[in-house]
Amino acid sequence: MIYLDGNSLGPPVRDAGARLQRFATDEWGTHLIGGWDRDGWISAGARLGRLIAPWVGAADDEVIVCDSTTINLHKLLHAALRLRPTRRVVLAAADDFPTDMYVVDAVAELCGCTVRRADAHSWRGIDLSDVAVGVLSHVHYRTGQLHDLAELTADLHAQGALALWDLSHSVGAVPIALDAADVDLAVGCTYKFLNGGPGAPAFAYVARGLQAATTTPIVGWLGHADPFAMAHRYRPAAGVERLVTGTPSVIGQIALEHALAAIGDVDVAHVRQKAMALGELFTDLVDQELPGVFTLHSPRQPTQRGGHIALGHPDGYAIIQALIARGVVGDFRAPDVLRFGFASMYLSFTQVFDAAMILSEVMRSGAYEDFRSAQRGRVT
Amino acid sequence: MIYLDGNSLGPPVRDAGARLQRFATDEWGTHLIGGWDRDGWISAGARLGRLIAPWVGAADDEVIVCDSTTINLHKLLHAALRLRPTRRVVLAAADDFPTDMYVVDAVAELCGCTVRRADAHSWRGIDLSDVAVGVLSHVHYRTGQLHDLAELTADLHAQGALALWDLSHSVGAVPIALDAADVDLAVGCTYKFLNGGPGAPAFAYVARGLQAATTTPIVGWLGHADPFAMAHRYRPAAGVERLVTGTPSVIGQIALEHALAAIGDVDVAHVRQKAMALGELFTDLVDQELPGVFTLHSPRQPTQRGGHIALGHPDGYAIIQALIARGVVGDFRAPDVLRFGFASMYLSFTQVFDAAMILSEVMRSGAYEDFRSAQRGRVT
Repeated sequence: MIYLDGNSLGPPVRDAGARLQRFATDEWGTHLIGGWDRDGWISAGARLGRLIAPWVGAADDEVIVCDSTTINLHKLLHAALRLRPTRRVVLAAADDFPTDMYVVDAVAELCGCTVRRADAHSWRGIDLSDVAVGVLSHVHYRTGQLHDLAELTADLHAQGALALWDLSHSVGAVPIALDAADVDLAVGCTYKFLNGGPGAPAFAYVARGLQAATTTPIVGWLGHADPFAMAHRYRPAAGVERLVTGTPSVIGQIALEHALAAIGDVDVAHVRQKAMALGELFTDLVDQELPGVFTLHSPRQPTQRGGHIALGHPDGYAIIQALIARGVVGDFRAPDVLRFGFASMYLSFTQVFDAAMILSEVMRSGAYEDFRSAQRGRVT
Repeated sequence: MIYLDGNSLGPPVRDAGARLQRFATDEWGTHLIGGWDRDGWISAGARLGRLIAPWVGAADDEVIVCDSTTINLHKLLHAALRLRPTRRVVLAAADDFPTDMYVVDAVAELCGCTVRRADAHSWRGIDLSDVAVGVLSHVHYRTGQLHDLAELTADLHAQGALALWDLSHSVGAVPIALDAADVDLAVGCTYKFLNGGPGAPAFAYVARGLQAATTTPIVGWLGHADPFAMAHRYRPAAGVERLVTGTPSVIGQIALEHALAAIGDVDVAHVRQKAMALGELFTDLVDQELPGVFTLHSPRQPTQRGGHIALGHPDGYAIIQALIARGVVGDFRAPDVLRFGFASMYLSFTQVFDAAMILSEVMRSGAYEDFRSAQRGRVT
């Protein structure tokens, strides 16, 4: 298999299965309730946050792993609106990942705010005097477009708005410097380029200076300042741990920790350099072998793309199916997008070359036409 | 080890480790993104809901597994307040599990409602004309008190209020008949008597007749009517699946499914009968061997208790530590509560007899006094 879908779900790192088995037998199965202390489950969210921190350019105490990206985005958007109570507008992209769009609409309604939707290109230079927060995916889930996190954050700040970034499609693929860019709030996913496993727990970032004033609408006992006091009144934990809600999926945390340990020595700058080269190789080969066959939905400049590339074709779904039948795994996004991810930690130049040649064969032979009537599968 | 803490965290069922390893190697590791379809991950939440349904007396399409108990309680309490928009009071217990108390306070504040706290004993016969919903744990986390779900639900309904039950400490231990009792909404946890693993995903129940009108404040792409259309506007899924938010922890779901399959043939009526007998054996032995030493915080009548029993003693923490050192695992809850769970699927009468004898020895010898200064551990 040539796996070009690490932008959707990363593969397990070595010995992930053995680690999970060991968890079930030697930790949960042996220590039972004692695992919370003896195996450090109780502190896993903060510990994982410290492992995520270098991937996003944050300090150790600015990142926590908990819940899902959706839940964390809900919490932080609500927090942002409380941090800017006199501003009643959320600025958001016109076409972002569905969860981001739904959460923005839902939280804005809950808070009596309105949503202004505009392409991020047009965010520069517009009046933001009523905007509480701008919410944007660092890398667009479909096109792969990489936004300038530092510039857009500075623009928002220049007019008094907060910046809330969704790093789901950039973390682990693109160098990120949240602290250097003075970002306020961020969320992200760990099952794509960080290989945490399907539905692995997500992370949330709150700049240190904002933590004491950050409130969350979704509270739970493990975000309490002293959970085991079992107090009747909620009192938030001191720092970013106040974003924790209920008891987290320990199994999910274990798998993520194992993945982060395995890639702990990797330099994301190297990941990025190789990924850009892989992407260029692929687009060059597609241009050369299949001129005019696809529309490039991604920016042509590798520096303006994240870890994946989007090609447009009216038979996109059938083409992806034909490729999968030949062992080349990308994915399809309606209406016409073929996505190919270049997760350079495990992809070789030879594999990318072969993938382009197989795509060329599928298109020249018309082999994809057999897949036109196939039922549309569901991949996330 | 004699494990009397299954009310806090159940042990793994047979082959749980092998199942997790197989997931990592044969599903995630082999099918990668294809696992969403080929291994049925995408439908796991609904499938698990159908497996939970018989444990709570619900129809197949009334239960969904997603997120945590905390998150689900937040969603359903918010939903309840929208279902009764002219009533502005939440009726809640004076002393419930911390998450339940924090969620009630937080959601009431978000919705501009007030909270009336009263012991569930006093709920009967009071004026509920301004109450939108009553929220209560079926079994109290500390005392083990089992509330009469059908009677209290009927009382709430008689005055136009909804009933929202937290089944975390009863599901898998006590027969529950949500449909028969005409319950409106319920949530619960799967890592106690259902053995799903630490932080296993939680469930939510919505009575069929209420589903179409049930809204959730926390939305995400997988609760959309057609997630893979990637639509810009949220449109809730038809039934209880609208409560799904973001991508769930598949690893957590796999472990839970394995556990539920293993206990699928168990009759909860038998579980309950044996558990009551185990509990009676324990309290009888404690009365006989250690008369007057402990205060019984639980009801004396086995039928009025859930799956665990609470004894009070000023040295409770030290006693629990001394027991653990002797292989008898219960837990401690501040200020003075020793909890002992009787998960009858795996506990024998001999074990419970031995546990009571070891407790007797610890108390008569004063061995627990050595543990008075031990640092308080953290168990959930």
